[in-house]
Amino acid sequence: MSGKRFNVAVAGATGAVGDVFLRILEERKFPINNIRLLASERSVGKRLKFAGEEFPVELLSKDAFKGIDIALFSAGGSLSKQFADPACEAGAVVVDNSSAFRMEPDVPLVVPEINPEAIARYKQRGIVANPNCTTIITIMPLKPLHDYGTLKRVVASSYQATSGAGAKAMAELIAQTKAHANGQAMAVEVFKHQIAFNVIPHIDSFLDNGYTKEEMKMANEGRKIMGIPDLRVSCTCVRVPVLTAHSISVNAQFDKKITVAKAKELISKFPGCQVMDDPAGNSYPMPLFCAGKDDCYVGRIREDESAENCLNLWVCGDQLRKGAALNAVQIAEALARNYL
Amino acid sequence: MSGKRFNVAVAGATGAVGDVFLRILEERKFPINNIRLLASERSVGKRLKFAGEEFPVELLSKDAFKGIDIALFSAGGSLSKQFADPACEAGAVVVDNSSAFRMEPDVPLVVPEINPEAIARYKQRGIVANPNCTTIITIMPLKPLHDYGTLKRVVASSYQATSGAGAKAMAELIAQTKAHANGQAMAVEVFKHQIAFNVIPHIDSFLDNGYTKEEMKMANEGRKIMGIPDLRVSCTCVRVPVLTAHSISVNAQFDKKITVAKAKELISKFPGCQVMDDPAGNSYPMPLFCAGKDDCYVGRIREDESAENCLNLWVCGDQLRKGAALNAVQIAEALARNYL
Repeated sequence: MSGKRFNVAVAGATGAVGDVFLRILEERKFPINNIRLLASERSVGKRLKFAGEEFPVELLSKDAFKGIDIALFSAGGSLSKQFADPACEAGAVVVDNSSAFRMEPDVPLVVPEINPEAIARYKQRGIVANPNCTTIITIMPLKPLHDYGTLKRVVASSYQATSGAGAKAMAELIAQTKAHANGQAMAVEVFKHQIAFNVIPHIDSFLDNGYTKEEMKMANEGRKIMGIPDLRVSCTCVRVPVLTAHSISVNAQFDKKITVAKAKELISKFPGCQVMDDPAGNSYPMPLFCAGKDDCYVGRIREDESAENCLNLWVCGDQLRKGAALNAVQIAEALARNYL
Repeated sequence: MSGKRFNVAVAGATGAVGDVFLRILEERKFPINNIRLLASERSVGKRLKFAGEEFPVELLSKDAFKGIDIALFSAGGSLSKQFADPACEAGAVVVDNSSAFRMEPDVPLVVPEINPEAIARYKQRGIVANPNCTTIITIMPLKPLHDYGTLKRVVASSYQATSGAGAKAMAELIAQTKAHANGQAMAVEVFKHQIAFNVIPHIDSFLDNGYTKEEMKMANEGRKIMGIPDLRVSCTCVRVPVLTAHSISVNAQFDKKITVAKAKELISKFPGCQVMDDPAGNSYPMPLFCAGKDDCYVGRIREDESAENCLNLWVCGDQLRKGAALNAVQIAEALARNYL
């Protein structure tokens, strides 16, 4: 990168992803001139640490983006819809972590390792959309396999961590766990049902076709990012009592045979992916290992002889990092490096 | 049933499944004349409650089966291999819950709702095998769909409870949970890794093809029970931090189209299955609901448009009951009713 430095706003700075945004901007030494931390009224006045200094939380409003070069949004879809366009009009490029704009034709949807060329289309509306967390983690290892063997069909079942539903959701799992340990009654507020010692096959709301929005996001966003509009995909998304890191059981069919050895070679060479696949050593990706790590980990790579040219994969990644904040910061880095 | 009563032995009476065996024999008022509770040396002398009386635990030995009509085995594969044939020689019919004999050609593998006619083949060796827990729960709703539309291919990912690995495994999850709540270090003994707040894609040992024994049991046992030797199946088996009841995300392809409405009708008419599928009411099968229940619950029934004649199902059942003890007692009931 050149020596240029940028004025950056983080909208939704006090949320689960907002906190990780700040940590990742620090860790990666993003070239920041000024940082502005934005949130809704009830957080205004709080002070958050960034790079050894304390910064006040300011109100997320239309006027908050004056002088901002890059605005990282992670305040939920409705606030993105309200404030992303005003931020662009004020001159900022918005990297939006919500689902508000992901499927808009004039907004690129980007995983920098997969479709970095799409970032250039930020000029159309001023917005780059950051994909759904489960989508990113699932398609990371599919991209190098697709480049080699052309992806035909994906059947995926997810094991999603509570923090994917926000900081309060993670706190609810911990509170329910403590209540169980102490023989107390459990409160159920964030999730529809108790999540401790349970699994819930319901993430985001249901659509008329019986699928959840989360399941359709995985299908539709995956097609858009991978540039395979007719990709055949079917997903089942399930919440599990895990704090951080999503896991996905992926069954993927290709046009061409990919051996396990070839798949391992392709995935291990792909930036952002690590092969972790040593059954004899009891080594395979698990959320406890992947939480806090940047890469997506891939294991249990097996030929599926029940269909032609088919592989099973088990993918695990930190959905707050590569599934959200890290991917968005990587987009911001590409914007800073190539376009701003 | 006629008025005949039977002498029954329970081998492995002190284990997680053994306890459920006793409860189910009581609940279903199995026509017992005498009951004999057998276990390994370290449990001899314990007393267990059955039908309001206390019975002593006796040593599982070759001589323990004299006068026994039906021996229910749930003491693990190696003890089944050691004592099932001697039990048969002593005149008992063995219903074996281990994997020791399931794939033997002269041993029928039975889910009474699916292939009751196979029970007659107990005469060949004196043994009827009880299938793997995840297999039973997965194929229960597939049978009525197969009878209607001919099953072609199954892709399944499981969410398996800790008690599937025994009473100690369940205790380990509870102990780890308490340790977390109290800020103490966690002991990891039964599972290869911490199971609290984690998921582990590893159940039973690994085979050379990269699959686990559990995954291959699901494939091979499902084929044998359903009588579809060339059924195409691929499974991924995963342990989740749940106490009781396994869940399975099933993607099933048929020769003929089955609408969602037809699938619900077929499954709800099938004995032992309940359709629980009201997304608008946040109603779908979950382990917390299914634990302690006899039926397999089926929800999230959706057409999968990514392949011809394909459905997604979410199945959940108590793996200690229908997945183990209940299914074995149902086999014993059929033996008592029709053959002994």
